[in-house]
Amino acid sequence: MSTRPIYMDHNASTPMDPSVIDVMERSMRMHYANPSSTVHSAGVNAFNAVESARTIIAKAIGARTTEILFCSGSTEANNLALIGTLPLLKSKGKNHIITTSIEHPSVLEPLNYLQSSHSVRVTYLPVDETGRINPSDIEEAITENTGLISVMSANNETGIYQPLEEVGQICTNRNVLFHSDYSQATAFRPLDVIKLGLHLVSISGHKMYGPKGIGVLYRRLRKPHVKLSAILHGGGQELGLRSGTLNTPAIIAFGEAFKLVSKHQAKDNMQLLALRAKLLEKLTSIPGLRVNGDISFSLPNTLSISVQGIEPLALTRILRDKLIFSASSACSTEKVETSYVLQAMFGDTHRARTGFRLGFGRGTSETDIDNTAKVLADGIAKLRSGQIG
Amino acid sequence: MSTRPIYMDHNASTPMDPSVIDVMERSMRMHYANPSSTVHSAGVNAFNAVESARTIIAKAIGARTTEILFCSGSTEANNLALIGTLPLLKSKGKNHIITTSIEHPSVLEPLNYLQSSHSVRVTYLPVDETGRINPSDIEEAITENTGLISVMSANNETGIYQPLEEVGQICTNRNVLFHSDYSQATAFRPLDVIKLGLHLVSISGHKMYGPKGIGVLYRRLRKPHVKLSAILHGGGQELGLRSGTLNTPAIIAFGEAFKLVSKHQAKDNMQLLALRAKLLEKLTSIPGLRVNGDISFSLPNTLSISVQGIEPLALTRILRDKLIFSASSACSTEKVETSYVLQAMFGDTHRARTGFRLGFGRGTSETDIDNTAKVLADGIAKLRSGQIG
Repeated sequence: MSTRPIYMDHNASTPMDPSVIDVMERSMRMHYANPSSTVHSAGVNAFNAVESARTIIAKAIGARTTEILFCSGSTEANNLALIGTLPLLKSKGKNHIITTSIEHPSVLEPLNYLQSSHSVRVTYLPVDETGRINPSDIEEAITENTGLISVMSANNETGIYQPLEEVGQICTNRNVLFHSDYSQATAFRPLDVIKLGLHLVSISGHKMYGPKGIGVLYRRLRKPHVKLSAILHGGGQELGLRSGTLNTPAIIAFGEAFKLVSKHQAKDNMQLLALRAKLLEKLTSIPGLRVNGDISFSLPNTLSISVQGIEPLALTRILRDKLIFSASSACSTEKVETSYVLQAMFGDTHRARTGFRLGFGRGTSETDIDNTAKVLADGIAKLRSGQIG
Repeated sequence: MSTRPIYMDHNASTPMDPSVIDVMERSMRMHYANPSSTVHSAGVNAFNAVESARTIIAKAIGARTTEILFCSGSTEANNLALIGTLPLLKSKGKNHIITTSIEHPSVLEPLNYLQSSHSVRVTYLPVDETGRINPSDIEEAITENTGLISVMSANNETGIYQPLEEVGQICTNRNVLFHSDYSQATAFRPLDVIKLGLHLVSISGHKMYGPKGIGVLYRRLRKPHVKLSAILHGGGQELGLRSGTLNTPAIIAFGEAFKLVSKHQAKDNMQLLALRAKLLEKLTSIPGLRVNGDISFSLPNTLSISVQGIEPLALTRILRDKLIFSASSACSTEKVETSYVLQAMFGDTHRARTGFRLGFGRGTSETDIDNTAKVLADGIAKLRSGQIG
């Protein structure tokens, strides 16, 4: 067994692809001029590099280049999508937003802000034990005042995909804007913003083998044109919607990450599905182990697991030199709270309290999978026998 | 003469120091885990690396580590400082902010937003031909309703330092919050937040040989504790004030850039002053050339110049293969408008319309300076003789 712990926390952040690092490193040496300084050749070179990354990303998701807004990550993209459409919604007399109870905090918290400071009413759709919302709940929740629906692509804790195509159809029929936080799915599922009927989409670099600190908000300009208001004000970059010097090296590396994902996605997914099947098969020998959510609707790299009688934080602790995984969403780890995602699926139950997540990726080997199963089984046995540490 | 154009646009963005690139590259390979995932060793390693960069930066500016908030750059830092204090100001019945007429757009635009959407009144202090504000103007502008004063460290177009110490003294005496956009000065002038009486300071990585896409907002926690409200909502990172996965590699590289600046600043400044003196001496032979602002109060790397009868955009164009410099602040280059900074100094005059900026840095050689003087003189002579291109 390798001495380095196995990285099973790809859902929190993926390692950067080595060739993405190379591209970024070259760009750091080369593109230091400000890409807004287009009066000189160095600025133009940086500008052109940014625009070619923009074109790669636009093409990959079926968008126009002018529909791609670079920002610092999907937290900012979600904030810009949700807070930035408020003036548009208000101008149409809309004050109701529909979302799910299992969104990432970077969707739920901006919505909290809109509720508490801007008199927006928010409806949170439930999920069942499969981890999915029911599109018919949306039909029931929509009122005349509904201006926006925000549904994530796949949940970060369970990996379960949401029925975006159905939601998009409803949004189109009912003339409601449709936003999706697609961060968790970009590495695995091709995105076609037109086919899904999306008006706003958030994407993150570091969840798809790209750099941290870079994200994209897709904003539809074709009819219906989504009028957006900036939340960061300044030099007027990104059509005035995201001021701040463009992060040229990260943008170029993000473009490279998109290129690689588009190229390898189908093969990656096959391998990941095979690895997950193998892992599941090995884990079935552990008594009291249950997989959370319907994995026929899941990211190929994710397993959310609960084990009878096993406190997941204790498990991460005793396996910390061998296996790197999360007991709950990374963003909530400063407080030890039962995952609201698993609570939405299973109520305030032992199963919800004992959930943990294994998330692997492009660099995961069969040996890693074998070892993961082994150390998990050992750790669980140890905790059960009371020999902790 | 070298075939590569000479980079004289350090004020728009500095090249990254090669050792900062190395640090960042290593961190991209090493610290991919989410630094908020402190349940596992990989997350703890990333967290520790972030915290050690935070400590370097805090020490360098006389702050506590908890007073350092990482964000995506100084545009975001300025927005967070100015928009984020609004609830505090309102709770104290303050609705008046004082700033200067020559701030960066990332200060002026958030203030515009506060004026138009939140009934804040803003006073813009004038500057004289030296490029500096007069602190006594602040004394006169302060009213009972004044909650915040924002004055930049040094202007990005002219390099002229503002009298921060005097402003800080006034703010302390009158019990008004003091913010400074210090982005342009960090590479050249040591920052001591206590000595300057600052409550909020914005700093940018890419203006001090560090990476793009990373910045810091210093926020005072010692009495008076500055209560701030987030503008990006989500996972609650950075004490809840700046949600979003921490950009570990950029943060670590930013710490390295701070380390290098602290180490080399005194020597860098001496060299830059000598280079500038040499450049000035050579440029004096050009008829009709004037230096804008009082350079005894200036960043050592900057010269703002106006030349009688010379349209600066024409000059950048004919020298584009030889010299990289800006006719006006990079952030405003999408529109060709007379610089509002030079207008504030000289009114709507020929001198204001013809200003351009030479900004050099750590990597600039004496040969670069000789060649800069030469190509400028040649270009100006060419434009004057009408032989364009």
